Amino acid sequence: MSALAFVGGTLVDATGAPPLLDAAVVVRDGRIDWVGPASGLDRGSGLELFDVSGKHLVPGLLDANVHFVLHVEPDVLFRYDVGDYDELVLEAAQVALRTGFTTVFDTWGPLQALIRVRDRINRGEALGSRFLVAGNIIGNDGPWSMDFFPSTGAALSQEMVAAVNHEWEQGVGAELTWMSAESVRERVREYIATSGIDFVKYASSSHAYMRFLALSPRAQQAIVEEAHAAGMIAQACSQAIEPLRAAIDAGVDLLQHADVTGMNPIPDDVLELIVERRLPTVSFMNTTAYIEAINDRAGSWHGSDFGRVLRVKDENNRRFIAAGAKLLMAHDCGLFGPTAKTSPFFATMQTGVPDYPYYLGESHLYWMRAAFERGLEPMKALQAATRNIAEAYHCLDEVGTVEVGKRADLVILQTDPLADPDSYGRITDVVLGGRIVDRDRLPEHPILTHSRES
Amino acid sequence: MSALAFVGGTLVDATGAPPLLDAAVVVRDGRIDWVGPASGLDRGSGLELFDVSGKHLVPGLLDANVHFVLHVEPDVLFRYDVGDYDELVLEAAQVALRTGFTTVFDTWGPLQALIRVRDRINRGEALGSRFLVAGNIIGNDGPWSMDFFPSTGAALSQEMVAAVNHEWEQGVGAELTWMSAESVRERVREYIATSGIDFVKYASSSHAYMRFLALSPRAQQAIVEEAHAAGMIAQACSQAIEPLRAAIDAGVDLLQHADVTGMNPIPDDVLELIVERRLPTVSFMNTTAYIEAINDRAGSWHGSDFGRVLRVKDENNRRFIAAGAKLLMAHDCGLFGPTAKTSPFFATMQTGVPDYPYYLGESHLYWMRAAFERGLEPMKALQAATRNIAEAYHCLDEVGTVEVGKRADLVILQTDPLADPDSYGRITDVVLGGRIVDRDRLPEHPILTHSRES
Amino acid sequence: MSALAFVGGTLVDATGAPPLLDAAVVVRDGRIDWVGPASGLDRGSGLELFDVSGKHLVPGLLDANVHFVLHVEPDVLFRYDVGDYDELVLEAAQVALRTGFTTVFDTWGPLQALIRVRDRINRGEALGSRFLVAGNIIGNDGPWSMDFFPSTGAALSQEMVAAVNHEWEQGVGAELTWMSAESVRERVREYIATSGIDFVKYASSSHAYMRFLALSPRAQQAIVEEAHAAGMIAQACSQAIEPLRAAIDAGVDLLQHADVTGMNPIPDDVLELIVERRLPTVSFMNTTAYIEAINDRAGSWHGSDFGRVLRVKDENNRRFIAAGAKLLMAHDCGLFGPTAKTSPFFATMQTGVPDYPYYLGESHLYWMRAAFERGLEPMKALQAATRNIAEAYHCLDEVGTVEVGKRADLVILQTDPLADPDSYGRITDVVLGGRIVDRDRLPEHPILTHSRES
Amino acid sequence: MSALAFVGGTLVDATGAPPLLDAAVVVRDGRIDWVGPASGLDRGSGLELFDVSGKHLVPGLLDANVHFVLHVEPDVLFRYDVGDYDELVLEAAQVALRTGFTTVFDTWGPLQALIRVRDRINRGEALGSRFLVAGNIIGNDGPWSMDFFPSTGAALSQEMVAAVNHEWEQGVGAELTWMSAESVRERVREYIATSGIDFVKYASSSHAYMRFLALSPRAQQAIVEEAHAAGMIAQACSQAIEPLRAAIDAGVDLLQHADVTGMNPIPDDVLELIVERRLPTVSFMNTTAYIEAINDRAGSWHGSDFGRVLRVKDENNRRFIAAGAKLLMAHDCGLFGPTAKTSPFFATMQTGVPDYPYYLGESHLYWMRAAFERGLEPMKALQAATRNIAEAYHCLDEVGTVEVGKRADLVILQTDPLADPDSYGRITDVVLGGRIVDRDRLPEHPILTHSRES
Repeated sequence: MSALAFVGGTLVDATGAPPLLDAAVVVRDGRIDWVGPASGLDRGSGLELFDVSGKHLVPGLLDANVHFVLHVEPDVLFRYDVGDYDELVLEAAQVALRTGFTTVFDTWGPLQALIRVRDRINRGEALGSRFLVAGNIIGNDGPWSMDFFPSTGAALSQEMVAAVNHEWEQGVGAELTWMSAESVRERVREYIATSGIDFVKYASSSHAYMRFLALSPRAQQAIVEEAHAAGMIAQACSQAIEPLRAAIDAGVDLLQHADVTGMNPIPDDVLELIVERRLPTVSFMNTTAYIEAINDRAGSWHGSDFGRVLRVKDENNRRFIAAGAKLLMAHDCGLFGPTAKTSPFFATMQTGVPDYPYYLGESHLYWMRAAFERGLEPMKALQAATRNIAEAYHCLDEVGTVEVGKRADLVILQTDPLADPDSYGRITDVVLGGRIVDRDRLPEHPILTHSRES
Repeated sequence: MSALAFVGGTLVDATGAPPLLDAAVVVRDGRIDWVGPASGLDRGSGLELFDVSGKHLVPGLLDANVHFVLHVEPDVLFRYDVGDYDELVLEAAQVALRTGFTTVFDTWGPLQALIRVRDRINRGEALGSRFLVAGNIIGNDGPWSMDFFPSTGAALSQEMVAAVNHEWEQGVGAELTWMSAESVRERVREYIATSGIDFVKYASSSHAYMRFLALSPRAQQAIVEEAHAAGMIAQACSQAIEPLRAAIDAGVDLLQHADVTGMNPIPDDVLELIVERRLPTVSFMNTTAYIEAINDRAGSWHGSDFGRVLRVKDENNRRFIAAGAKLLMAHDCGLFGPTAKTSPFFATMQTGVPDYPYYLGESHLYWMRAAFERGLEPMKALQAATRNIAEAYHCLDEVGTVEVGKRADLVILQTDPLADPDSYGRITDVVLGGRIVDRDRLPEHPILTHSRES
Repeated sequence: MSALAFVGGTLVDATGAPPLLDAAVVVRDGRIDWVGPASGLDRGSGLELFDVSGKHLVPGLLDANVHFVLHVEPDVLFRYDVGDYDELVLEAAQVALRTGFTTVFDTWGPLQALIRVRDRINRGEALGSRFLVAGNIIGNDGPWSMDFFPSTGAALSQEMVAAVNHEWEQGVGAELTWMSAESVRERVREYIATSGIDFVKYASSSHAYMRFLALSPRAQQAIVEEAHAAGMIAQACSQAIEPLRAAIDAGVDLLQHADVTGMNPIPDDVLELIVERRLPTVSFMNTTAYIEAINDRAGSWHGSDFGRVLRVKDENNRRFIAAGAKLLMAHDCGLFGPTAKTSPFFATMQTGVPDYPYYLGESHLYWMRAAFERGLEPMKALQAATRNIAEAYHCLDEVGTVEVGKRADLVILQTDPLADPDSYGRITDVVLGGRIVDRDRLPEHPILTHSRES
Repeated sequence: MSALAFVGGTLVDATGAPPLLDAAVVVRDGRIDWVGPASGLDRGSGLELFDVSGKHLVPGLLDANVHFVLHVEPDVLFRYDVGDYDELVLEAAQVALRTGFTTVFDTWGPLQALIRVRDRINRGEALGSRFLVAGNIIGNDGPWSMDFFPSTGAALSQEMVAAVNHEWEQGVGAELTWMSAESVRERVREYIATSGIDFVKYASSSHAYMRFLALSPRAQQAIVEEAHAAGMIAQACSQAIEPLRAAIDAGVDLLQHADVTGMNPIPDDVLELIVERRLPTVSFMNTTAYIEAINDRAGSWHGSDFGRVLRVKDENNRRFIAAGAKLLMAHDCGLFGPTAKTSPFFATMQTGVPDYPYYLGESHLYWMRAAFERGLEPMKALQAATRNIAEAYHCLDEVGTVEVGKRADLVILQTDPLADPDSYGRITDVVLGGRIVDRDRLPEHPILTHSRES
């Protein structure tokens, strides 16, 4: 494979260094081979030049929390034999790649299908964003259980419900919440050893009701220890103050949506702890337009006042920004087909709502817009979507910045991402492992996105 | 095509004539060519002999009320693009054929799929029981509407619910119950002219609540008149006394489950009317074992006491038999896959219940057993499953008895159906249009019956 | 009792005669004794004068369809032993009287309590609007049954639900809808003879689903015949076209809310029939403000599109007015306490909705406003609230106009009811049976209206 | 007040001492004045003798966990102004006294009504079992909230639901589960200081779902510390292993139903901890007949398998007995009126179930039967219902055994409680504070128990 040089654009390498005008980036054998001023480029020896004058180069984007299979409704999942969701996964990975994501982290999904597609992409047999998988959120039952959408589960054949839920649960579902911490440890150790997951996610908050601790602090600690013993990072899903605190105390490596603390904002001491320890803090930041639209609707989630939850979240995010927390961009996003617009669950909050943040490929634009609105420095916003995530997931040596030796993942933008957050939506090219992606053919087999595309 | 002679068995031709011992039946070109004592058979000229000594010949069975697509739950229907249920229909037609049915009447289902398969079978492109179709029960909305399983509908994408319901409704759904009789007439006339249906069925009772009139007597009369004007027979679904009465007054040609009259038995005068006019009376007769099992459970259907409904039905059936009504065998049966056993709707009443009468291919055995239990003469029981149905559906010149000139549809039984009702389940061969069916390969592509078979 | 003369106001006697300026009305012994120009008044002999100069006199108002006990929720009804709702009934009768109603017709309620209070008022033991009672709507089960608010019923002790429902059902509930017309006749005959009701109301439409016929035309005819045989008028509750038609054909004396025909407007021929026969036509007319507010909300009632039902109703009413139908004012109104504002059923459609028409004492103001909006002549609007109702209920010889010999029921208004519909809300005095009502003390024991008053 | 001597019976004083045959117990001024062999009794000086020859004396019984107001359904609670449940409380206290209970502990109820009646009894203004109150289970919302019976709440006026729930919540409801441990501490401190409660109970398990931690271990510790700082004992409601463990670690003084650990039995190490520390262990022991009856029914509680929960509980209890845990008798019992037999919640599991343990006045008989079945020594069973509870609640110096100086609370039984558990139901007399109770007049105003009595 010959080398390729992107010449003439402005490089924002996400290391924190100031933008380099009229830069050149050379990629070779899938890696970044040279970075510097275009003037210093050695143009000899089979180097193919790619003119990006007037454009902006940033690292391939990362997302700290996606769910490739999120449209978990019967009309989608029953199209397939139980668990054979590979084409849904691949479609999502290709939508991610098309929109600038070169590495993402799937933190809840049907494990076997995710692993199969992850491995196909890693082996070069399929094209799509690289991704790592958590599988189940340990301690939760599957999508049609009482922990997520119980009324869907109640309307279907119980045999099918159990089978579909199992694709998510994989032996580490709600039954663990009945167990002693010691039994949880044992079960999780085996799961880590045999399941093929890349990192560990567990439920600190109960998903139903949000506010309870699904797993005791002792059990949480056991899980984190097992993850670390296996060389994995661990993260927790928390949605209230004490579950967040429990996750921190348990030693998690990444706080999944630490901005979501239910009905009350994060206490000062907890916030300070997060900032001081430089804990990677995933933020589900929303735009003001979205928050206001939702506030005007009557809404509740398991008895909480959803509008208040959003306002508290906003307050937390503003405090995170002011305190200089190490933020990571994410939004619980995934692919949805057109039928989601009339689904009992996914329809409610999106019809007529601006900046709805749950669609993969769009949600990051609203995140960036919200970050700019709230005064996060543009450079830090970029790092939240690149460097910080790579660091948090322990792969900063491979991805997350444009530096020599790293994977050659680049996004080329028409306008300046440090000046205008919408620039992230003005992609001219995506480079994955040194190759320019033919974005027009992605996704190759549109299923859910068929109608959205046409 | 050469001729074939079934020689040596006992023939019960369903005309009412006494059994003919040591009979011969010659079939040629798909028709019955000769019937008589084996001793009178002209054995020359290329006649292939088929020895049925010791066995019993009856006409191919008919069923007055099947629903080929009855397992209308998301895990079944969402396997297909909306409406593409052909393989479900064909499987049912093949199960019917395998179990002795050569002509059946589908009285509620997804019209286009039914028509496609009906025509394929008629053209000889597919093997299965012949069947005629009603499509929708005029005046009812589809399976996931408020008229049938509203909580299924509520748990799914409304776009998909509407699309699936439409496969049943076909423009003659519940909206007709809001209309004037005049508008109903107009709509039904167009439907009859353009839909491809074979006969007309409408809702006299509301399906939800059972006890209301879904269509006014004026509207019912309009529908029957339109059916007759188009040369079709008309039938009504009634589940209470006044709806039954309204259907009779409207001039229907066949009383669909006249034994089901809700919480109170048929009044004497109505019963007499039915008997005197020789109105074809479909009966959903149950065995005593079934009735008792259901009575021991708490059960209700839209606020009725289901146990009482069954007891009233039993009383009606005993009175029909005593009065010599012209009974037709049927049971609302269809195919179900194994997931029905844990479905919210179909599971409730079948687990551990003997003689459960809703499985196509089995339900007629319970009907026969119930008929014998209640003292219906065995010859009349046979006619209820053959001759009477053919006559009611105006095709007695083609099917329903073993007589020269009719279609050569035969069922060969190991034991005497006049002595033991279980004989109907002891089939050695089925003859459809003069050909011996290879029953072992039916259904050719088992979908729903896959697990039941294995 | 000495005589009393109301002198100097403008009299609109509701006979259709033009207003009489500077009129005098003499009342004596509870009856109207003399009506004429004030100048012709014989002022001698103990006549007490009551100066109404500048004011407007109309007959005491009537309402063709009230439900004194309409706030049928557990927090109201469980305050009492089952059926002991007398104080709720009396409060409603007093609110009616205070707001100008001297005779109303309760068309659905707990029969025994209604009868007890009706009789107390008639005997002069209690003060309140006179009222006649229908008791149950024959064919419907009680308020917590499947016919009205099934989810209330499901959440309570079944023993209590049955007991409360029985106060409404009185042996002529939904069980009649399972019966033959002959059995219905028998049951209704006995009910009329023994129940103490004043007039008969039955369900032509099913209350749940609206669109079905709850009782067959044969059964309806039987009911009307039995009512007439007992010297009572009969009326039907219909909410769709064919049920309306069935009621007309059955010979009812009054069409209860004939403007409500569900999803489709009244056919021309039915409308002509109503107009030609001068059938008393209760109208549930709404203001445009109300219709628009409701249309902006997602709303359904048993699967109908509630917004469309309102628009169809409006169209019907405009056609009734144009065709000169004999309209009667009513609105299904009743008393509600403050807890209705947060009830699962009554809250939905009233919060923030203008001209909400279900509060007794207010609803008629919206009716008048709607009538003026739609161009009904002011004189005819007044007659719809007085003369026409009296005539329809066969008591025009007693009430409904200001004529000599009739009961001395008067409402004195500050402004001209023929010029401004809001005049009906500007009452200075109410005269019931010749006595000026002390409106300030009504209701004497505010229960439901306690908070509204304070 | 003169002294009274109970002479001639067998005394089982619950200290653990062997039964004293032909004993005498002298009570004076409400206290026990002398205990010894009848032969040693000084019969002079105004001593009234009460012959109990052939009978058995035990201390007045205690119950570690009652809910005087447990029939929390609309037909009961809506009879009263919100919170005015005093007559329900008093009735329960009198039923308790009549059946042998002289001191009980109400661990969940409407606080103000409980306090009012508690104080009336303490002041001698009303007759009934003495009782101490916890008020709310801190961290739970009220009875009609999502934590208990959400579908009741959904069917009623939200204004009323909030008001009724508040009677239980008292500012320490579910909102605490959203808070930091520090905020919980503050709120609880104020609650303890101002509410008038006698002891503290909090939710370690979530009530809905059972298996989650409603309050974090940090919050639990804060609550226990605040209780102790105020001189109160603290107890936790736990229903799964980790919540039980968290409660122990938090330092609670009494384990409320430690035998209920959801789907899995108590781990050995936790059981050993309980036994070694002599932690007062409330047990909800059931008879084998009850367990088997429930197991034969399909039953679930928030997604758990209720039958399995019972079997696990039984296993825990057998292990507690074998290990010599310090058991306390209780059963979540309360008063129910006859309408509970058809209530959506309370009906399900009692119809036709033997030894149903939730009726105050009966439940202890099943406990005793279950204890004997499982081999608990009769003397220890008696102590579980007397001495152990008194000790756990820190009032052993006042009640719990028959010893000089204590309150003169006695139960006189016809048969030997150490030989036959049913003896506890064969009461001849109850002595409360030295006075023989006129049991025949209790309850004085039967409301809920009216029908059960008649």
